[in-house]
Amino acid sequence: MECVFCKIVNKEIPAKIVYEDELIMAFHDIRPQAKIHILIIPKEHIPNNLYFEGRHKALIGHIILKANEIAKMFEIDKTGFRLIVNTGPDSGQEVFHVHWHLLGGEPLGKLICK
Amino acid sequence: MECVFCKIVNKEIPAKIVYEDELIMAFHDIRPQAKIHILIIPKEHIPNNLYFEGRHKALIGHIILKANEIAKMFEIDKTGFRLIVNTGPDSGQEVFHVHWHLLGGEPLGKLICK
Repeated sequence: MECVFCKIVNKEIPAKIVYEDELIMAFHDIRPQAKIHILIIPKEHIPNNLYFEGRHKALIGHIILKANEIAKMFEIDKTGFRLIVNTGPDSGQEVFHVHWHLLGGEPLGKLICK
Repeated sequence: MECVFCKIVNKEIPAKIVYEDELIMAFHDIRPQAKIHILIIPKEHIPNNLYFEGRHKALIGHIILKANEIAKMFEIDKTGFRLIVNTGPDSGQEVFHVHWHLLGGEPLGKLICK
């Protein structure tokens, strides 16, 4: 198994984990693009957003609700935060295990940066 | 009611709608930031991501799965796309009715642009 995020889920490689339950895990991005940059992933290996199926609806909802809790944990609920999911080449997706970027702690600028 | 997205939901003001069902609506952003720039919203007025409750989990999952279908509709499923949700000041959230930005059709650059 070559998926680096699956290895983090299985505790085969270390990560600065900020939240974990049976379904999901959240940890600091090793190359933060903002003062706060957390990745939130399902434990199930799902290569990207296009691989979500109907049975994942509650999982997706769980991720988004936990993103709010993690934002509160880092006190960026009041100052603001951005959630980003990249899918495929034009988006710059680098790890093929679906992940939400939770970004905040400073003004995040324009929606995209071409 | 002053919410511009509620007015779009109620067909009080026009929008280039690309998808609609009982729960959600998707339409072209009037100021596109990429070649493809669609907004996906719940019909229910929810000011931002922090206002989602447990009862919204299936709705959130529905939005994300429909985002995939809309990406396919615009043939950006293969080339790639980005989903973004802004919450609060640092994110630049402008309309206080929660909305997902679906962006694609060209390389989208870095994750954020400070």
